[in-house]
Amino acid sequence: MIAWKNLDTLDAYQALAATKDSVRLAEVMAGESGAARVRKYSVPMAGGLTYHYAAKKVDDSILEKLTALAKEAQLAQKFEELYNGAVINLTENRHVLHHLTRGQLGKPVIADGVDKREFYKGEQAKIAAFAKKVHDGEITNEKGEKFNTVVQIGIGGSDLGPRAIYLSLENWAITHDTLKMQAKFISNVDPDDPVGVLRTVDLAHALFIVVSKSGTTLETLTNESFVKDALGKAGLDSSRHMLAVTSETSPMAGNRGYLAAFFMDDYIGGRYSTASAVGGAVLSLAFGPDIFARFLDGMAAEDRLAALADPMKNPDMLDALISVYERNVLGYPVTALLPYSQALSRFPAHLQQASMESNGKSVNRFGERMNYSTGEVIFGEPGTNGQHSFFQLLHQGTDIVPLQFIGFRKSQNGKDVEVKGSSSQTKLCANVAAQMVAFACGKDDENPAKRFAGERPSSIIIGEMLTPESCGALLAHYENKFMFQGFLWNINSFDQEGVQLGKVLANRVLDHNTDGALKEFAGLFGI
Amino acid sequence: MIAWKNLDTLDAYQALAATKDSVRLAEVMAGESGAARVRKYSVPMAGGLTYHYAAKKVDDSILEKLTALAKEAQLAQKFEELYNGAVINLTENRHVLHHLTRGQLGKPVIADGVDKREFYKGEQAKIAAFAKKVHDGEITNEKGEKFNTVVQIGIGGSDLGPRAIYLSLENWAITHDTLKMQAKFISNVDPDDPVGVLRTVDLAHALFIVVSKSGTTLETLTNESFVKDALGKAGLDSSRHMLAVTSETSPMAGNRGYLAAFFMDDYIGGRYSTASAVGGAVLSLAFGPDIFARFLDGMAAEDRLAALADPMKNPDMLDALISVYERNVLGYPVTALLPYSQALSRFPAHLQQASMESNGKSVNRFGERMNYSTGEVIFGEPGTNGQHSFFQLLHQGTDIVPLQFIGFRKSQNGKDVEVKGSSSQTKLCANVAAQMVAFACGKDDENPAKRFAGERPSSIIIGEMLTPESCGALLAHYENKFMFQGFLWNINSFDQEGVQLGKVLANRVLDHNTDGALKEFAGLFGI
Repeated sequence: MIAWKNLDTLDAYQALAATKDSVRLAEVMAGESGAARVRKYSVPMAGGLTYHYAAKKVDDSILEKLTALAKEAQLAQKFEELYNGAVINLTENRHVLHHLTRGQLGKPVIADGVDKREFYKGEQAKIAAFAKKVHDGEITNEKGEKFNTVVQIGIGGSDLGPRAIYLSLENWAITHDTLKMQAKFISNVDPDDPVGVLRTVDLAHALFIVVSKSGTTLETLTNESFVKDALGKAGLDSSRHMLAVTSETSPMAGNRGYLAAFFMDDYIGGRYSTASAVGGAVLSLAFGPDIFARFLDGMAAEDRLAALADPMKNPDMLDALISVYERNVLGYPVTALLPYSQALSRFPAHLQQASMESNGKSVNRFGERMNYSTGEVIFGEPGTNGQHSFFQLLHQGTDIVPLQFIGFRKSQNGKDVEVKGSSSQTKLCANVAAQMVAFACGKDDENPAKRFAGERPSSIIIGEMLTPESCGALLAHYENKFMFQGFLWNINSFDQEGVQLGKVLANRVLDHNTDGALKEFAGLFGI
Repeated sequence: MIAWKNLDTLDAYQALAATKDSVRLAEVMAGESGAARVRKYSVPMAGGLTYHYAAKKVDDSILEKLTALAKEAQLAQKFEELYNGAVINLTENRHVLHHLTRGQLGKPVIADGVDKREFYKGEQAKIAAFAKKVHDGEITNEKGEKFNTVVQIGIGGSDLGPRAIYLSLENWAITHDTLKMQAKFISNVDPDDPVGVLRTVDLAHALFIVVSKSGTTLETLTNESFVKDALGKAGLDSSRHMLAVTSETSPMAGNRGYLAAFFMDDYIGGRYSTASAVGGAVLSLAFGPDIFARFLDGMAAEDRLAALADPMKNPDMLDALISVYERNVLGYPVTALLPYSQALSRFPAHLQQASMESNGKSVNRFGERMNYSTGEVIFGEPGTNGQHSFFQLLHQGTDIVPLQFIGFRKSQNGKDVEVKGSSSQTKLCANVAAQMVAFACGKDDENPAKRFAGERPSSIIIGEMLTPESCGALLAHYENKFMFQGFLWNINSFDQEGVQLGKVLANRVLDHNTDGALKEFAGLFGI
């Protein structure tokens, strides 16, 4: 039986909080003890990845307390409840089933009268069959010509995750000769977004996927109209060019204006929908369904690790525990995510959504205010670019920002140049290794402006190469991390009530039903 | 005579700090008083923009104290010193002259034996003449064919600003038939960056601009080699395809391997170099020198406002004062920058650099530690996308994050669709107006999960359209804001000592001169 308790009511948390800031990184990371930490403080992930936490402010004593916290907070049991189909999303009275899109961790989950794993697999099979026909030229445009581009129309979870993963694997797919169609994305209701994207698209050979779970997302329906308008003006039949990804009960579901429709459901939050038809359609069309299946395999393998009860063997749970220690005991409100991989350029933007929308909550699962902080601000850009930008503040600013690095031993393309005795890839890797030590240990200097205080904790996930499997494992790692954080904070990570008020007020503006400050602000825009 | 004093030693700051958190947004923004605030609390900017601060936690009493603070901190005099050529950058013993790239606010500044305004104008004239020859087909490739693409190779300040501004104006330029060449950017030492970009470039018709002030930036030189290698393999003569932007004393300056070289100098920090040859070459080639001149005019006009002593007439100074109030009195460590304009998609990344690299400092101008916080973390994504992503935390998270919105009455392209009785542009504007009221006023609800606490302050800059002039004014606004923040914090906003340690350690890794944790981390990457 699970007891859903606030973090600060747990004995293990009180023991952890009593440790204060007890680990001095400059000491423990120095000399041979530092080397020993790097060798010792790591845990394998799926996809050939490893999570290294030697440069975090932990030691054996704190890790024991984190392990005790995991047990007392019943993290493994909570996850087990979730994947066995409990109604974890209390506010919306829903199951949370995104793990079922890539594997079956527990018992069959029957909802709405169907086995949900079978339902998600069935949609993926439909998508795979459809994609194959497109790639083989069985499904073509009006003139019988093959499609060469796929454009996703969606916003938020229907955009950020699929876009981040497409960019993660685009160059890998080109190098491995498996890019079937180029993918593009339209998201913003700003008309300059669709206009800009459509300029680069050969409409006659493009498929458009309209993605909205509810079938009512205003931005997406507006951009769908934008695209239909453009297709019409080009003399093209939009029903030959448009697909829908939606829920079976949405107004988009039975619409004959689409070439095909693929389904997800209410048990998959937008920000967790990359593994569902939301990501599946565009990524299967772009890379081929086999590549998407490999991506799902990477996710499923990481999920299996996330189900282990011992956090010292469960990288997703351990990462969550350390981050909650940093957030609530050490008091750091922001985390930077720094992939040393250009292909992961939009990965931080997706995880920013996944984390901040999941855990930016002020009340617990029962609607009560807590006495502690929850979800952190997440931001990041790829390295080494960030080193020439905001790293100054990370090194010498007045606030400490914990860092999460990601790096790979090999580039996706393999092409490289030797300059001054080393390849670009070696320089990239040397830089991330150097940064971790610089942030941890700092450096004294006679000149105070050149002094580095150090004590800035970081972790790193290292892999051989960013491939479909490792990319999947990476995404699942963070999804599961955010889930465990939410369990620790005793919040509902699966609703998003905070987006509602803005929608209501925007509709009032559009209905010209305003007064006071809202009327004045609208007036500034001539509305 | 200027007294450089710490913020907390100023009487006006103590008076401000004593106000605590005295303004309740839900009260002052309600009803007619809220409407009156929106009408009253604004100040004109250049380029047709207006800075609105009605939804900030200020009232007439706090604005008086901010005005007193501006006076006691001698903000106007400090800026005057700067633009008249004082050695404001004490640590590096340098003038700070980026304002001279777009206008002459004060006396002629003579350095290195030349009038610096004339020097920068001269380089811009050289660039304009060169660009004209390229556009007119007088300067061509080996076969006498016109160039159609320009690729900037640079990192940090040589990348983020020029890239952000290019993206800001690309679709405007297409719509106004003034896109002369498409621009692309290579920055990361990750070899997947140049490989990915070069795949999309027709090498035979591309000009490459190598940008490094010192001529020694390792990432940039490495990517230059990458590109030269690609040109060589394509049978092209790299000296017919490559330009340099550097300082006159750098190893790149006298190099005959370039078709042309344009210069900046040590008095322009990378993050402030968009108005110099660093941005001038690529933007003049892409848009034509006349468009770049209009961008500079927008910057210069905003600079003139920044020189006004009264913060109630000086939007850059006022924005800085309010932000320091938020950072140091209200205690908010993070600011979100939220342009409701897809064209500004990379503007937050550039300002993240400009702010965090400038003001992420722990010692004052004299190398002494202060007792207050300095530079904040800046992050942001375009709206309405962010509404479907991290806005949940902004609305209902446990921490308050001040917000800076940007919006325009008209889109750049003019094309639009009507859906449900309104255009896309109207929906975009309605959303930003709604968000400001939602963040300020919140909303009570019987269900605690649907409750919005409000009291989350925001400002907005509104313009007619994002054009070269308004884009320039916008950039100058933030540059000047960060400068005034640095003056208030009594720090040197123009050095970046915090980037050095990582470079030193990375070189140790590349030289295989490591031990301890550094050796182990490098070993994880096989180095």
